[in-house]
Amino acid sequence: MRATTIHAARDIRVEEVPDPQLKRPTDAIVKVTAGCICGSDLWPYRGENPIRPGATIGHECIGVVEEVGAEVRDFKAGDYVIVPFCHCDNTCAHCRNGAQSACVNLSMTSSGQAEYARVGQADGSLVATGGTPSDDLLASVLALTDVMPTGWHAAVCAGVTPGATAVVVGDGAVGLCGVIAAKAMGAERIVAMSRHAPRQELARAFGATHVVAARGKDAVAEVLELTDGVGADAVLECVGTDDAMTTAIGVTRPGGGVGYVGVPHGVELPLRTMFERNLGLRGGIAPVRRYLPELLALVQDRSIDPGRVFDLSLPLEESPEGYRAMDERRAIKVMLRP
Amino acid sequence: MRATTIHAARDIRVEEVPDPQLKRPTDAIVKVTAGCICGSDLWPYRGENPIRPGATIGHECIGVVEEVGAEVRDFKAGDYVIVPFCHCDNTCAHCRNGAQSACVNLSMTSSGQAEYARVGQADGSLVATGGTPSDDLLASVLALTDVMPTGWHAAVCAGVTPGATAVVVGDGAVGLCGVIAAKAMGAERIVAMSRHAPRQELARAFGATHVVAARGKDAVAEVLELTDGVGADAVLECVGTDDAMTTAIGVTRPGGGVGYVGVPHGVELPLRTMFERNLGLRGGIAPVRRYLPELLALVQDRSIDPGRVFDLSLPLEESPEGYRAMDERRAIKVMLRP
Repeated sequence: MRATTIHAARDIRVEEVPDPQLKRPTDAIVKVTAGCICGSDLWPYRGENPIRPGATIGHECIGVVEEVGAEVRDFKAGDYVIVPFCHCDNTCAHCRNGAQSACVNLSMTSSGQAEYARVGQADGSLVATGGTPSDDLLASVLALTDVMPTGWHAAVCAGVTPGATAVVVGDGAVGLCGVIAAKAMGAERIVAMSRHAPRQELARAFGATHVVAARGKDAVAEVLELTDGVGADAVLECVGTDDAMTTAIGVTRPGGGVGYVGVPHGVELPLRTMFERNLGLRGGIAPVRRYLPELLALVQDRSIDPGRVFDLSLPLEESPEGYRAMDERRAIKVMLRP
Repeated sequence: MRATTIHAARDIRVEEVPDPQLKRPTDAIVKVTAGCICGSDLWPYRGENPIRPGATIGHECIGVVEEVGAEVRDFKAGDYVIVPFCHCDNTCAHCRNGAQSACVNLSMTSSGQAEYARVGQADGSLVATGGTPSDDLLASVLALTDVMPTGWHAAVCAGVTPGATAVVVGDGAVGLCGVIAAKAMGAERIVAMSRHAPRQELARAFGATHVVAARGKDAVAEVLELTDGVGADAVLECVGTDDAMTTAIGVTRPGGGVGYVGVPHGVELPLRTMFERNLGLRGGIAPVRRYLPELLALVQDRSIDPGRVFDLSLPLEESPEGYRAMDERRAIKVMLRP
């Protein structure tokens, strides 16, 4: 099949690789109708994560079931499905506790930017869309494979409640989905931190009531001023750097919560400050499957429209250009169509 | 007045110091009927916190209002009161958010092991007991000034819910009160980590269903075995050392929560591990005033009996012996009567 591969930092190719095969009787193979590039794919792209040269890359896709293993009961060839980037059996103790991203049978999509992808624990992982999504919903359905549930998870972990003041640190696709989540959970004031006009605009369209373009201490001062010196109830850290975490902690009110979903890179937590201010901190890889039924319903009844984060759509063959566009922040998020 | 003072590590004295005076019109002076020594007093006692030679020490006391400032409305001389160790106005934004330990008018009891203590923001801070506590309730009422609400806060921060499996790291008075809290909140299994027979016994009396005497990796292995490899839902870290936090994080199930109330000393958080397992972490100085009405009611209707943590009662003049007894773990917690 044709697949996006990574060979070294900034060396993304589209080439012929073996088709994925059923490895376990609980697997399924999905023919990808749409995949996309994730902000976290930029870590290896920029050489900040280890690279296995020639490996396929991409963990977000939707598509049509091509083949299922002997033990798959709930899906069959032809079903249109959402593939959560982390696969889970949805029955183990961790899954029952809502921690599907720590499933004892966890695996990940490894060729989402390709023609086919293998899904582990198909019965537990996949969610049927009920037929081919209409054109106007396709992007939003694709966003459900990772960024929308990840933004949602940040809001859950931060503890957004009706009437709350929420701050979203990070204006990537996840941060923008965090704005959608905060809005859907009833936050009254939503502060988006962004210095890029198209992203500021999208944040406002998604429900942000304030935009803070400043960074670091200035950004903290601005949020404190907005909140009469109190700070925000719930802060969504959607980047993963030490600067972003420092800002997130700086704007959280005593007793408030930080939800973090950016994979931490070089973050050092100021534990004494957190203790003195009774801050809560919770986050991690989103348990995507847990949120999918609820989020799919919100997409299908058009309550939320996370697909708007896709501002560039390319044929799979142009994957390398997609990476460049995201790396240079020319695009928020890139869809790839095989 | 006679007061306990600290001059250097392991140099505790009882000596004559000036009586505390009303400094602000919102202050009250309380004549102490009972005070006590806190596990956190052992940090300076052991030379691990800075010491101002000759300073009074002790932040826990109950007693009778002696005098109130001109702006105090709700209390008058003669009222029997609980003095939460952190004083708050109970009206500012942080207090209204339940973060009374971050009150904009925060102060602390500074002569709880003495004849008199000044209380800031008396109207916001003090809670009347409704007369002199009966002899059998006095110790439990005294425990409400710090250790019981602090153990309660650990359980709240850890997220103990009915049916949960809770683990309490630390068998000091706060940890033991954490067992009481977990039980009152409906935890089904409560694992107390303790290697000291009298504390194990008290933990069981307070509701612990299991006792783990092992430490470090062995303790983690034991809790994992108890929980079929899953880990605990809610973990109360009531010590403040890196070892205790490492153990707490090690026994928490994916998606579970760690509540920490031991003032962190040298703790380094394994953020990547926390991210991978979606652990929640929340803690800090307990907002004592927030919990007092509820906890006083539980004490008065004899639902909880935290006063049992006091296994040694001494006259104020024997304060130095009280410190030695706690330092050498001969006593769990020492009451001092002026």
